Order: sequence, then structure tokens, then C-alpha cells
Amino acid sequence: MASASALAIPVTAWSRQSPRPTINAARLRNRLERLSTHGRPPGGTFANGVTRVAYSVADLTARAWMIDEIKSADIVPRIDAAGNIFARYGGQPNQPAILFGSHIDSVPNGGNFDGDLGTFSALEVIQAVQAAKVETRHPLEMVLWAHEESTAFGIGTAASRIVAGDLQAGDMDRTWNGMRRADAIKRIAGNPDQIETAVRTKGAWHSYLELHIEQGGTLDKAKVPIGIVDGIVGIHRYDVVIEGFANHAGTTPMGERQDAMVGAAQLTLAVREIAARGKGRQVGTVGRIEVEPNSPNVIPGRVTLSVEFRDLSEQVLRELGDAVKARGAEIAKDTNTAITFTLASTNVGAPATSGVQDAIAKAAGTLSLQTRRLPSGAGHDAQQIARLCPMGMIFVPSVGGISHSPRELTTWDDCARGANVLLGTVLELDARDSA
Amino acid sequence: MASASALAIPVTAWSRQSPRPTINAARLRNRLERLSTHGRPPGGTFANGVTRVAYSVADLTARAWMIDEIKSADIVPRIDAAGNIFARYGGQPNQPAILFGSHIDSVPNGGNFDGDLGTFSALEVIQAVQAAKVETRHPLEMVLWAHEESTAFGIGTAASRIVAGDLQAGDMDRTWNGMRRADAIKRIAGNPDQIETAVRTKGAWHSYLELHIEQGGTLDKAKVPIGIVDGIVGIHRYDVVIEGFANHAGTTPMGERQDAMVGAAQLTLAVREIAARGKGRQVGTVGRIEVEPNSPNVIPGRVTLSVEFRDLSEQVLRELGDAVKARGAEIAKDTNTAITFTLASTNVGAPATSGVQDAIAKAAGTLSLQTRRLPSGAGHDAQQIARLCPMGMIFVPSVGGISHSPRELTTWDDCARGANVLLGTVLELDARDSA
Repeated sequence: MASASALAIPVTAWSRQSPRPTINAARLRNRLERLSTHGRPPGGTFANGVTRVAYSVADLTARAWMIDEIKSADIVPRIDAAGNIFARYGGQPNQPAILFGSHIDSVPNGGNFDGDLGTFSALEVIQAVQAAKVETRHPLEMVLWAHEESTAFGIGTAASRIVAGDLQAGDMDRTWNGMRRADAIKRIAGNPDQIETAVRTKGAWHSYLELHIEQGGTLDKAKVPIGIVDGIVGIHRYDVVIEGFANHAGTTPMGERQDAMVGAAQLTLAVREIAARGKGRQVGTVGRIEVEPNSPNVIPGRVTLSVEFRDLSEQVLRELGDAVKARGAEIAKDTNTAITFTLASTNVGAPATSGVQDAIAKAAGTLSLQTRRLPSGAGHDAQQIARLCPMGMIFVPSVGGISHSPRELTTWDDCARGANVLLGTVLELDARDSA
Repeated sequence: MASASALAIPVTAWSRQSPRPTINAARLRNRLERLSTHGRPPGGTFANGVTRVAYSVADLTARAWMIDEIKSADIVPRIDAAGNIFARYGGQPNQPAILFGSHIDSVPNGGNFDGDLGTFSALEVIQAVQAAKVETRHPLEMVLWAHEESTAFGIGTAASRIVAGDLQAGDMDRTWNGMRRADAIKRIAGNPDQIETAVRTKGAWHSYLELHIEQGGTLDKAKVPIGIVDGIVGIHRYDVVIEGFANHAGTTPMGERQDAMVGAAQLTLAVREIAARGKGRQVGTVGRIEVEPNSPNVIPGRVTLSVEFRDLSEQVLRELGDAVKARGAEIAKDTNTAITFTLASTNVGAPATSGVQDAIAKAAGTLSLQTRRLPSGAGHDAQQIARLCPMGMIFVPSVGGISHSPRELTTWDDCARGANVLLGTVLELDARDSA
């Protein structure tokens, strides 16, 4: 492991004595393009997006390649019991590290920027500091969170959640796709038998930074290259079961039906109506739906669906849930079905630390980049790590606001700008005893 | 093959000279119970219903056993190129046969009476005639139609449809469950390479009779044991595709969504509203729905669903289709999605021949059983065979009107009554030169 050499320039001096450290934009692009081949659809190109679900073969090969890239930068990767990959560079041994990174797992049919940009930009930050021979006070630590998307096991930010201490009995026994979660974690070289060793305590790091694509259209529409996240929304997700009665679609008069799909349709429209009313930025989605027996000539007897609400305020989330449950009771009565709601998962919203927001603003200002403050509508690992240390997030524009889609796109110039703001913010925070 | 012996009593004489031929109710029940084990859920009982989809392993073993039962009655089964099983008994060689039967394939999670009752009652009719040593003028021919439910390949009454001449280029190349239709038909000992040999011409039979459970609640509610079907409704089935845009469920404001599921929900409610208005007996159902990508945190980008309308009148069916397409265009505009309708299949409605209806009424009257005329809301093989010869159907009560469900139930007494009316009607028709 190469440490900062004796010839390194103290950080506070770089702007006067040497060229400003800067990330290698060509290398960043090249790495993101190479990463995209792990989970690319057969016969596709970069534009066809990626399916790299956590613990899949594509995830395993991508992680192995990432580890090689880290090693090629002369730093030593470490895998914790949850499968997260950390790598640390430089700094004084008595100082807490500044942590930054993201994830490389994707949703099915996802894009090539969500998570990927923040992960490889983190490696760029360390390589830029190495190249500029800058000696930081705090160790710089990059991280690849092992499992961020909620596709696997239905749990989002699953790996950073463990690090933040959110572990419960039985967590390792959950199954998904015929696989126990413990076995999934073993596949990525984690250690489920000692999973508690992955838990970190408050103050474990000086601060945490994550560069990410916005996944919404605010920055793109406003032509602003850098977003400073003021907070990450909370999520309340319900599993809803609508029980009707499966009967013959030809012989059962309209008035005698207990059609679970009709109940599900009414509930889907109720979720939209409830989320869209009022002035807030709350959103509500029915994204998953399963119909039984799902045959054209049988009245649906049972539908299961997901209802998800997102907002910065826990209070608003509770009110949205209460409103849809009340509508559900009316719909059940109207359609002669039984509707049950189970709160399947909650993500607590997290404000970004104002000091970290200011550091991002300063770094962007140095690069003469315009910024805008905005909340994150998506969940991020930063939300979990906010429980352990000061947190901030940098957003770059998503063209057309598209994400979780092969059409997800951030221009290479915007990628480079975001990575340089991440680098500048790390160095800005390094100058402070606390963020 | 045992033919009617020289000692057999001419049919017109049986009521005076010998006990009335009657079916063996205990044997019928026993056979239906044994049939139910082919496709029974693991660990289940008769009450747990059956999944015996056409061409499945359960279907194959049930057919093999049925063939054994036919052989045990000393008649010779013949399998046509479509996989239909026929078996003929007695009659004068220059007379057309009276055909009767049904099917034993089921929907997933179906019941133990739909099709099964009519198929095994057909074998009972022949065995009752054998036992009573009755000599009929017309050969008696039972049939097991190989594929009636629309689960397989999305085609209902598929095997009788071939017999009625409804064959089109490419039909054998359709795929379903990774299986070509030609290969499916080979599995059941049909001959897809000479499929045209299964086609029969007008006048192939003297008449066709089918005993079936009502699958609706009319007879059960009215406490009438025998239904005389006056016609079978036509079916228009549409495949509908709703194209929205898959985007992140957290970052896309409610007003900017192109949510295919919201479009699907509105269309589902429109189908119900359109079918329920007006005074007719028409029904409309959205029974199948597939959402992509079907993840709680992604706005659905694409939904495919089935819309099915049933009515006796082709004109009404066309009007219902036009109405839902018009609503679909409005919904597409309202939800910023694209909605396309494809008429995937049509079943032409078929009236039952009045002469056959009268023969059923006479047979029921002889047994002092009350009857009611009613249409069939379900499609049946009789609908196809109506193109070739006079047709009639006998219904028995479905408890609670339930069918296509493990809870489908017809009492054993009603089963026996129906089989005896089938027997009586066959003998009644035998006395007539034309039905």
C-alpha cells in the first residue's frame, strides 16, 4: 500500500504550489463503460443498460473486476462481513477517515450511472490525490456498498443498513429467488456468521459523501450542473392483499362478482389521487402487482400489490398511509373483497448536514459551477450512514429525469464535473476538524 | 369390441319389456374421484381441486387412465390427429352416430366437475346401454375433447375447433410454455403433421350432446336440477398493451409520470362499467395482467392485460369492444400512455337446436325432473360442434354458482340425475331420423 510520500504537499498549500488535483475524466468514462459489460443484455451496447442485481453472476464478476481496479491503484481493498468493499488511503493514524462511495448493483433493466458513477468517482478521488501528491490530514476511504437496490430480498440500502446497526434476528434467514440471505452474502465473500462485525458505531467516520445521479429532472430542466442534496426522503412501503373470489368469467353476472382486480384498480387510482393532492412533493406508486389465477377467463380471486409513499416528513408518510388504508376499507366494501395492508418496510428520511452542504457549495464555487439545493426522492446508502456521521450528497443531472431504465443518461462532462466536486469537497472537509 | 348382441332389445321396446336403462351412479362418482387424483395439489384431497392443464403431465396420466377405463368397458378408443379420444358402440352401420362427451383438462386451480362430469357420464351412457342390452339404431359415440380450457396456448375449445374445420396456417407453430403446439399435440398421441385428418364435415354426426355443470348460480338458486341450454354465448377477447414509461418511483413527480399501471387500472374499471350498464346479460372481465418491470420502486412502464366480453349477440360484442376502445383512447390521453387493442380470439355464439332441446325436456320429464331453459355464459366444445350437426347441452346445478375454483361443487345426486338425462336424451334422439 502506497502511503503519501514524504515529498507530498500539505493540502492547504496545493492551490498555490501545484496544479489543482483533478480527476481523470477519460479513465472514469472508460471504467464506467467497462463496468457496463457486467450484466449487459446479450448483443446489446452501453445504451441497452444493465441488469446487475445484487448477488447475481454479473454482480460477482463486476465486484471482482472492481477489486482489481482498486489494487491497480496501489491501495488495499477490504471486504466486511456484509460484503461491502472498503479501501483506505493516506491520512494521519489518529484521525477519523472521510468516507465516500456508492454502489454498483442495479435494478433489472437499469441504467449505467445509478451508483456506478459515485463508486468509480470515489476511486478517482483517491487516485487524483495520489497523483497530485497531496497529503490529507484525514484518511480517505472509498466504499462500494454491496446491496443498495431493493430488488434483492425486497430490501433497499441493505448493506449500509447493516453497517448502521439495523440488524434483526432472522435477517440472515430471509429467502429470495430460492436463496437464503446468508448464502447470498457468502457469495460476495461476506461473513454472515459474524455479520455483527460489520456494524459501525456513531463517529466511525469524519463524514460521508456520496456523488449520485439525480434520477429526477430538476437539474436537467434548470440546466444546473450540480445539485446539493438537503435531505433524503423517507419511504413507507406496504404489501397489500386483496382477497376476492375466483369464479368463471362467463357465468358470473357483473353484480355478483368479488373481483380482486377491480379492487386493485380502484386502490391504484386511490394511491395516485392521495399522493397528488395537496402541495407537497410526496409521491405514491403501485409498482408491483400479482394476480391469481391470472387467466383471461377467470375473475381474479386474489391480487397482491405494493404501495409505496415517499416524503421528507415521517408525519406526512403516516398521513398518506392512513388515507390509503381508509380508502382501502371503502373499496373493500364497494367491491365485496377483503383488503389488508402490511407495512413491509420503512426508510427513515435523513437531512444532509449543513456543514457538508456548505463544503459542497464551496467546492463547486471554486470550479465556477452553478448549484441548486434539492431533496433526494430516491433512497440512498447516505441515508443509513447519516446515523453514524455528518452526511452530504452531490447530484448531477439525469437527462430527461430518467433512471432505473436503460435510457438513464448523464453526460460524460457532467460525470466529470460531479467527480471533481466530490474531490474538492473531500479536500474542503479535510481542512475541518468536524463536518 | 362388443357389439349389441342378437338378444338385445330394440330401444323402442325397453320401457315396456325391461327395467329402464340407468347409469351406475356409484361407478360415476368413483371414477370422478379417481380422476381427481391426476393433478391434485400435493397433500390435498378432492376438495382441494385440480390443476390439470391440457398437455401437462397430469393431463397425460389422466388420459392414459381414461383410455384404460374405456377399454375395460369392452369398447375401442381411437385418438384423432388433434388428440381427441373417441369410442363408438353399437348401431346400424349405415346410420350416423350420436356423439356425446366433454373434456378433462382444467384451468390452474380448477374444480373436479367442469368437463369431467360430461366425459365420464358419456362412458356411463354406453355402459348403461350395454348393460340393458338395448340395441340402438344409431351408433353411440363418446368423445373426450383434448383441449378445452383456454389456459394452454390461450385458445379455448381448441381441439373441437380443429374438428369443426377451424384450422389456419401457422396454428401448429404457436408456442406456449416453451412448447410448440405441434409438439404438445404429439405428447397426447395426436398427429400434427396430418392435423387436417381430424377435420370433420357437416353432417358427420346425427347430433351432439354435452352434459356440463352450469358454472353459474341460476339452477342452484332456483332449486331446479336440470338446465336445458338454449344457446352458448360468443366471446370476444382482446390483448391490450399499455405503454407508459418506466421511471424511478421516488424522483418522478406525480404530474410527470407515464404510469402504465394507472392506465391499466382505469381500463379495468372501464371494462366493468361498460359491461354492467344496460339491461343485457353481457359480462366483461380483466382476468390476466402482467406488469413490467414489476418492482415496488419503479413506475410501471408497460402493462399487458386481457379484456374479455361475452354475450349471445355478435352485434352486442362488437359494440362492447368499440366502447372499451373508445374509453381506451381517452385513458391513453389522460395518462400519457399508448394503448393498443388486438382482437386475440373470438368464439361465435351458438344456438342449441330446438329439437334437441325438446328431446332433453322429454327425457327429464320421464324422470320427473324439473327443468329450466337458460343460456350458457361459458364457452363449450358444443359451440364448435354446432357447426357440424344439431347440438344440445344439459346443465346441472353448481353449488353457489362457483366454478374454475377448487370450491366448484355439484352434488353426487345432481351428477347422477344429469347423467341419466343424458342417457334418456340419447335414446330419445335415437328414435328420430334427424334431431
